[in-house]
Amino acid sequence: MDQTRKVSIIGASGYSGAELVSVLLKHSGVKIDKLFASGSAGKRVDDVYPRFAGTIDAAFEAYSASAACSSDLVFLALPSGEAMNIVPELLERGKRVIDLGGDFRIQDPVEYERYYKQAHSSVHLLPQAVYGLPEWNREAIRGAKLVANPGCYPTGALLPLLPLLKEGTIAPRGVVVNSLSGVSGAGRKAAIELSYVEVNESVRAYKVGTHQHIPEIKSILQHFTGHSVSLSFVPHLLPLTRGIYTSAYAPLQKAVSAEYVTDVFTRSYAKEPFIRFSPSAIPEIRNVRHTNYVDIGVRVDSDNNQLILFSAIDNLVKGAAGQAVQNMNLMLGYPETEGLL
Amino acid sequence: MDQTRKVSIIGASGYSGAELVSVLLKHSGVKIDKLFASGSAGKRVDDVYPRFAGTIDAAFEAYSASAACSSDLVFLALPSGEAMNIVPELLERGKRVIDLGGDFRIQDPVEYERYYKQAHSSVHLLPQAVYGLPEWNREAIRGAKLVANPGCYPTGALLPLLPLLKEGTIAPRGVVVNSLSGVSGAGRKAAIELSYVEVNESVRAYKVGTHQHIPEIKSILQHFTGHSVSLSFVPHLLPLTRGIYTSAYAPLQKAVSAEYVTDVFTRSYAKEPFIRFSPSAIPEIRNVRHTNYVDIGVRVDSDNNQLILFSAIDNLVKGAAGQAVQNMNLMLGYPETEGLL
Amino acid sequence: MDQTRKVSIIGASGYSGAELVSVLLKHSGVKIDKLFASGSAGKRVDDVYPRFAGTIDAAFEAYSASAACSSDLVFLALPSGEAMNIVPELLERGKRVIDLGGDFRIQDPVEYERYYKQAHSSVHLLPQAVYGLPEWNREAIRGAKLVANPGCYPTGALLPLLPLLKEGTIAPRGVVVNSLSGVSGAGRKAAIELSYVEVNESVRAYKVGTHQHIPEIKSILQHFTGHSVSLSFVPHLLPLTRGIYTSAYAPLQKAVSAEYVTDVFTRSYAKEPFIRFSPSAIPEIRNVRHTNYVDIGVRVDSDNNQLILFSAIDNLVKGAAGQAVQNMNLMLGYPETEGLL
Amino acid sequence: MDQTRKVSIIGASGYSGAELVSVLLKHSGVKIDKLFASGSAGKRVDDVYPRFAGTIDAAFEAYSASAACSSDLVFLALPSGEAMNIVPELLERGKRVIDLGGDFRIQDPVEYERYYKQAHSSVHLLPQAVYGLPEWNREAIRGAKLVANPGCYPTGALLPLLPLLKEGTIAPRGVVVNSLSGVSGAGRKAAIELSYVEVNESVRAYKVGTHQHIPEIKSILQHFTGHSVSLSFVPHLLPLTRGIYTSAYAPLQKAVSAEYVTDVFTRSYAKEPFIRFSPSAIPEIRNVRHTNYVDIGVRVDSDNNQLILFSAIDNLVKGAAGQAVQNMNLMLGYPETEGLL
Repeated sequence: MDQTRKVSIIGASGYSGAELVSVLLKHSGVKIDKLFASGSAGKRVDDVYPRFAGTIDAAFEAYSASAACSSDLVFLALPSGEAMNIVPELLERGKRVIDLGGDFRIQDPVEYERYYKQAHSSVHLLPQAVYGLPEWNREAIRGAKLVANPGCYPTGALLPLLPLLKEGTIAPRGVVVNSLSGVSGAGRKAAIELSYVEVNESVRAYKVGTHQHIPEIKSILQHFTGHSVSLSFVPHLLPLTRGIYTSAYAPLQKAVSAEYVTDVFTRSYAKEPFIRFSPSAIPEIRNVRHTNYVDIGVRVDSDNNQLILFSAIDNLVKGAAGQAVQNMNLMLGYPETEGLL
Repeated sequence: MDQTRKVSIIGASGYSGAELVSVLLKHSGVKIDKLFASGSAGKRVDDVYPRFAGTIDAAFEAYSASAACSSDLVFLALPSGEAMNIVPELLERGKRVIDLGGDFRIQDPVEYERYYKQAHSSVHLLPQAVYGLPEWNREAIRGAKLVANPGCYPTGALLPLLPLLKEGTIAPRGVVVNSLSGVSGAGRKAAIELSYVEVNESVRAYKVGTHQHIPEIKSILQHFTGHSVSLSFVPHLLPLTRGIYTSAYAPLQKAVSAEYVTDVFTRSYAKEPFIRFSPSAIPEIRNVRHTNYVDIGVRVDSDNNQLILFSAIDNLVKGAAGQAVQNMNLMLGYPETEGLL
Repeated sequence: MDQTRKVSIIGASGYSGAELVSVLLKHSGVKIDKLFASGSAGKRVDDVYPRFAGTIDAAFEAYSASAACSSDLVFLALPSGEAMNIVPELLERGKRVIDLGGDFRIQDPVEYERYYKQAHSSVHLLPQAVYGLPEWNREAIRGAKLVANPGCYPTGALLPLLPLLKEGTIAPRGVVVNSLSGVSGAGRKAAIELSYVEVNESVRAYKVGTHQHIPEIKSILQHFTGHSVSLSFVPHLLPLTRGIYTSAYAPLQKAVSAEYVTDVFTRSYAKEPFIRFSPSAIPEIRNVRHTNYVDIGVRVDSDNNQLILFSAIDNLVKGAAGQAVQNMNLMLGYPETEGLL
Repeated sequence: MDQTRKVSIIGASGYSGAELVSVLLKHSGVKIDKLFASGSAGKRVDDVYPRFAGTIDAAFEAYSASAACSSDLVFLALPSGEAMNIVPELLERGKRVIDLGGDFRIQDPVEYERYYKQAHSSVHLLPQAVYGLPEWNREAIRGAKLVANPGCYPTGALLPLLPLLKEGTIAPRGVVVNSLSGVSGAGRKAAIELSYVEVNESVRAYKVGTHQHIPEIKSILQHFTGHSVSLSFVPHLLPLTRGIYTSAYAPLQKAVSAEYVTDVFTRSYAKEPFIRFSPSAIPEIRNVRHTNYVDIGVRVDSDNNQLILFSAIDNLVKGAAGQAVQNMNLMLGYPETEGLL
């Protein structure tokens, strides 16, 4: 780390952007260069986020490609549909890019349009977008110009499913992914349905069968295992600020023991710094809050010939900003855990 | 109760309006006539509030004075500044009115303008507005054409303070009222500062020295006791849906015993159906949730020559809709507790 | 309703017991006779539950069969394993009994022992226990001496699944029931894992594959449909006080349309006073809080050849005390909704 | 920092102890030696606190003075009344001690016994106990053998009051301190009154006039300003995990401007790394969560001739473990902010 790199964030005033600021402040190798935010441009960072008072003496500014040029790497933390209009000019200027949004996660522009309800404006860049799930794509990320940081729900679903699907332990059909999310996953915005009174003491499923993370989960499963998977995914909104809890029910290809499953996970993840697999414990969101960990648990449900898998992540850390920094570490050659432990 | 009366609500789609619907549904003597709501006009009630599915088969409609004419009594549950433009035409048509907003609670239009940031448009009606605090104004309410339903914070502050101030137990100066409110008190609206993520796991004081309930508390204390009171009031926003908790610190005029204070409260409130004074217990919000009760507790703080008073109410019930129905019961001749126990 | 009946509660100081008190207070036909509670015996009800101050002037007392004799009907709201020792003497004395616990819900004593971890002490009474799910067992409940009130999770799971399984719409295998519960479902007790700090801002699955409601759900499905069902059930603990949210994934026997499914539910439940099926809306817990309603929603997931079913209940009302009173109404000849709307 | 120091924690399994572990893990100069915990002795740390999985590979052990000897400095995070029996033997062995409990904060053993309900067993050590409020006692802390880490409420109350009282801006009488605390302040224990269901959606004042932090606040105000202060303090329990919010009402000695007050705070705290005074903003708990900051705000309430002061802290960090490490840094010669930013 003989050299400090400069990074900027476009969309720095949302929850993922602000979390990214928090994580980067703990990183010994990079310096935050510019914080771009359209709505909050001109406002001091600590006026919008008073928790940064005394820590950051800077203001949000309006984005321009030339202003971003002083950075070695640029993070985008924008609502879906915005990054695809900005990434081209950044790549042209030779910037390396990590997009925390959904624009470059799905290779198929038809699927993108179906779920994101708009045509993709940078289809030509999709082939060079590298899916930023370090545990499964480490080498590609290192050399990538454009990393598509995984969605929060996909992160929670993919990490427990991938090793089992790849090993052929579970079947590529009939998988149920039931996910629960804290409210910060919906972003920072004024909306009655996100207000305290509407969310508190309630639970609701939403976007059943239409959530934009469905094609992401399916296509990434296929990408890393070769299996086309039939899978249902239902997200639920819960009265908590942070966290995603995933319960997945996956049919077994053959009868297996708990030891067998443990062995699959151990072989896949024993050396992963951010995956904590426990053969006995059931994950809980509180154990991963404000961390980049993914906690994974499993039960063999022999009665129903399936595995029941659980994972817990912090949606803003491993589900967004933490994983983005993990990717940055790979891209810039820092130790993968720098700033994240 | 030989006759069913018809009542309408203007501003029925806000939290106070919807709570009013809930309370009125339990009332054996009145029938809900019209539910006026500007923003939600045309929408079914159970589309906006699905909890009413199966209970209310009706739609919100746009307000007009003529449409309100079929009702015997009209409730207004509008943002401040709107009722004063509607009440005149209702009174002209001979309707009796209960306004849950702040427009007719303060007799002094200068004070109104200072705190509500707009000129009062119906100053001529202020003299006939009757403050709807049944425990202190029962007879006036019975005959009133226009009742100003008390604010949520004033209800919680006035009921413990009034008897002591009237008896001369506490001094009319140096009173501190520290109040805590759930988020529903801010109304149903899209606002980042009311979103779950911003409110959860936090507390903040707000409108320090500028809250519109300050002149209401002071003028009503004076109205019922004759004392001009110097008093500070600070509201705080808390992560709960319902409830107001008030802690008041009031200097003693003379040393008193706990028994003396108990006696003051007993004489004032022993027969009140909605006031529960306990000489020993400290109130808790959970005990009054979804009820019209005010729980009051007190400690004699001899070391500091003051009383410390506590009250807990449900801001949407005794602090709004419940108290409005209590007032309606007085106005229409029903038993005061009808629909409220 | 020419005659007031007297009812008592054994285990009245727990959350279900106290909720039962709340519901019975709104019932026009019955009078609460005795409130038995071992740990709180001798204490005033409003000392243990201050919310009852001014409403109930009574004390909890220690249970004895003779003291219960003055009642026409007795509710038991006890921890599992206690009711089976008390019910025999109540039945011998000619009392009708509604047990809110799990002791009489499972006909097979071997299954009982497997999941409840103790031998059943009143096996001879199991044949006369009637499962108290009014929507499916109304006639049997009317004449029953002993009603086993359904568990909270089973209530939420059975009501959406039963009509579809009976019609043959869904397959009796591969059903996934993913349920989320508020903390009151765990009962009123001192336990670190139920403390605010441990539960707040977290989620965790628990008792995976071992929960005592698994055999209840399976045996009742079989009882009312004739199908032996392979089904997995995973409960999760959430940071809310009340409510159970159930998401069920059920394989289709054949391709069906949304209209077909709506028709199945309409035929089954259109006249049910406490079931609200919506072909479009997704249930939310807040819509059923403090009510006896079950809200049901459904999506046809053609991609995965399954139905995704949702239900929301208040675990203390339809999941316990409300359903118990609904059963009482059937047993004693009151209108089924008395006290519950 | 040429040398790593070893520190141990006695009472490491409570919330303050565990937070101390978290903070120390971020410290570059110290190494955790022993984690003593009576109830959890023998259990792995990550079994009791799974969030430490992958981070700490150690077990709690039973305390003995000899086992603690390998450490340079020992933290005690014990329930009140336990530290005073252990500190003597640690000091005798030459260990430096930071006690996070209340045993050594009050110099007057009579006051201790009055509020802590037990006689003090180490009265002879009280004179050498140094109150660990770095902003006011930095030099004494550096050389101390025994530091009494301030209570959570006192930290929130003292820091805004001290400069104003010392300057003579506010009067030493009639001060009201109204404080709100999250549930973690009550410690980690099984108790019905701390269970989620009892705390959620409620607020209650407690220990009115009897809280053990009253003599601490008063005696420390006197210690650092010379004024004997008449002051009332009322703590309230709120439904949040972390945080203390303090609203204080302090009579002015003379009329002052906002600028004057700002100047007092600026002179006192401008160089303090953990105090953020804002002349305009009102503190919010969310801005200080998981930090060692104290946010302070103020309003001049000329109408009532008083100042209204606000502070927000994280009770487990600046109110306990963070401040303890700040003290340790002073004692061991590390930069005061090491491990805390």
